[in-house]
Amino acid sequence: MNRVCISAFGGTEFSRSSPTASDVMLGAAKSLFEGNRNVDRENIDAVLVSTNDNTKYLGAIISESVGIRPRTSHSVESMCSSGTSAIVSAYSYVASGLADTVLVVGGDRFDGPGHVLEWDESRGEFGHPVFWASVFARSYRDAFGISEEDMASIAAKNHRNAQDNPDAISGSAHSIADVLDSRRVTDDLRLLECSRPSTGGSAVLLASESAAAEITDCPVWISGIGQRTVSAGFTRTRDFTSMESTRDAAGQALAMAGIGPGQVDVAEMHDAFAVCEALAAEDIGMAKRGLGARFARELYDTENKMINPRGGLIGAGHPPGATGIAQAAEIVQQLQNRAGRRQVDSPEIGLVHNMSAAATSSTVLVMSS
Amino acid sequence: MNRVCISAFGGTEFSRSSPTASDVMLGAAKSLFEGNRNVDRENIDAVLVSTNDNTKYLGAIISESVGIRPRTSHSVESMCSSGTSAIVSAYSYVASGLADTVLVVGGDRFDGPGHVLEWDESRGEFGHPVFWASVFARSYRDAFGISEEDMASIAAKNHRNAQDNPDAISGSAHSIADVLDSRRVTDDLRLLECSRPSTGGSAVLLASESAAAEITDCPVWISGIGQRTVSAGFTRTRDFTSMESTRDAAGQALAMAGIGPGQVDVAEMHDAFAVCEALAAEDIGMAKRGLGARFARELYDTENKMINPRGGLIGAGHPPGATGIAQAAEIVQQLQNRAGRRQVDSPEIGLVHNMSAAATSSTVLVMSS
Repeated sequence: MNRVCISAFGGTEFSRSSPTASDVMLGAAKSLFEGNRNVDRENIDAVLVSTNDNTKYLGAIISESVGIRPRTSHSVESMCSSGTSAIVSAYSYVASGLADTVLVVGGDRFDGPGHVLEWDESRGEFGHPVFWASVFARSYRDAFGISEEDMASIAAKNHRNAQDNPDAISGSAHSIADVLDSRRVTDDLRLLECSRPSTGGSAVLLASESAAAEITDCPVWISGIGQRTVSAGFTRTRDFTSMESTRDAAGQALAMAGIGPGQVDVAEMHDAFAVCEALAAEDIGMAKRGLGARFARELYDTENKMINPRGGLIGAGHPPGATGIAQAAEIVQQLQNRAGRRQVDSPEIGLVHNMSAAATSSTVLVMSS
Repeated sequence: MNRVCISAFGGTEFSRSSPTASDVMLGAAKSLFEGNRNVDRENIDAVLVSTNDNTKYLGAIISESVGIRPRTSHSVESMCSSGTSAIVSAYSYVASGLADTVLVVGGDRFDGPGHVLEWDESRGEFGHPVFWASVFARSYRDAFGISEEDMASIAAKNHRNAQDNPDAISGSAHSIADVLDSRRVTDDLRLLECSRPSTGGSAVLLASESAAAEITDCPVWISGIGQRTVSAGFTRTRDFTSMESTRDAAGQALAMAGIGPGQVDVAEMHDAFAVCEALAAEDIGMAKRGLGARFARELYDTENKMINPRGGLIGAGHPPGATGIAQAAEIVQQLQNRAGRRQVDSPEIGLVHNMSAAATSSTVLVMSS
């Protein structure tokens, strides 16, 4: 199996603006090419598009628009984790030798499809993801006696981190008190604890070792991959204090990389809602059971950016097709020591955690410089 | 790179009925499992869904509905060639070692998206594919002086072949005279020369050599893969008497398989419109330049089923998400000598040709028993 790395990245700002999904994907691809002059478009073997948008044939449309005539082109959709699903596919193309370079470009609009679980009729009027997140938040708080302040520290940390991310949607830092004072969206979730559906695009270029040598002197290798789909329907979930798909995906990815969770120096975790970060930290093994929120509080108090340095989904915004790709691009920058004011101290191993639809599926990537 | 085979297949009838895309995909998966009792659902590593339907999260929905908890699940879309795009992705998962078994299931509704090129505004009111096919038909006829009868023999052959395909939409054989007498849809295309948008599902199970050994004693190997996207917009096409993406994809696939076009014993070709089969036969190299329609006429006159034995898209019907998978399933049956009344005489090498949107992209697979 060929080694596979991320050799270049690009992206747009995440906002509430109204260009089309194709527009932001073109913006992300343009940003990748402008930031990486060594990328030869004629040598791009595949273009995988990650989106929830309903426009058809976007693989070919984006390819033509940016002047690529790839062998492979198609769209990949898996709701919020479309981006990491496309990255895993791109990995398999390079690892198998079918491709040497794969452009993965994703994007969505703030008002596009993929934000609401329309397909699950068993959810009745509770189709909006805030309702499942609320069940997780209450169950987790009750099971472990989590303090209001510790829970609120997750959102406070991520809004603060986002202030060093020029592409983030969050306009200002918020204290724990601010989070606690923000409007209750449900009994168990406040507005500042929720990510905002956003418009935005992101892109990464996956490459084989030989192809990467032409592009960059600091490739970031994908050393572990884990994925699990446990169901489509939230109603199949029995334990709301842990995410089975994340536990499983993390176990696979860490085993493939040959590392333990304690060796992860920097991680992006899918905090569509604050409680998800606490659960993910536990399910990946970076925090002990019941101590995920406490872990976030300590990071907040010590101004440690190792989890969600770009602000997570809460701070950066959440265009579903772009999110997983933007997470990977952040870890690339961190492992290249090029993250500017967001930089964690000399990280060697990074991790991306992404998931969809009440954690009914998860993807975990382990990356190293 | 691990060897990859198709170890099982299933499908529904293609018709004008109105179940949802998910329903026909479930039907196809159910047919696969019922026809292949050795398939262990617990060991299916990935579920790739091929569709143009707008429903989100179908990878997880189909997985849950058929009782699979795969690692990887997502949807793949590339208009008419979504099915072969998903098969190529599945191939890369197995070849790279990321998966041992991948279920590829595709389907669409006759009135679903993906039948019209809505995204290409430069086509103006000529968005329906019949218009580009009409340009191809006239250009090809004028360039090579193709007779009306030879052109009509393509559709006559495929309608006749479809009568031995119990899942086909075409209800009766049509003579060359019938084709010529059918209503003109444009100046250059008649109704019986056009495939019909259909409702239907199809499924194949890709497997590694070791996984396949548990499932079947007659695996069919994928020995060659070729793909090319030249553009998204028909307006970029300069030569309407040949399909550049098909030439390129076929060249790659035949080279990878280490064979010449003359060694292909049975082939599925994408005849969304009759002219496409003539062009494909030439672009793959199975017919000489300008003799693709003559090649079809000879097959018609001699009742040789080697091209489009299940009736092609014209005879079988065309649910875009299912078509490429149904093509591959037909070649599997042929190479297993299990195609019943459609059986070609002891074929050893088969080929699948699929394409999208005025041949702006093509995929070619070479398969062997």
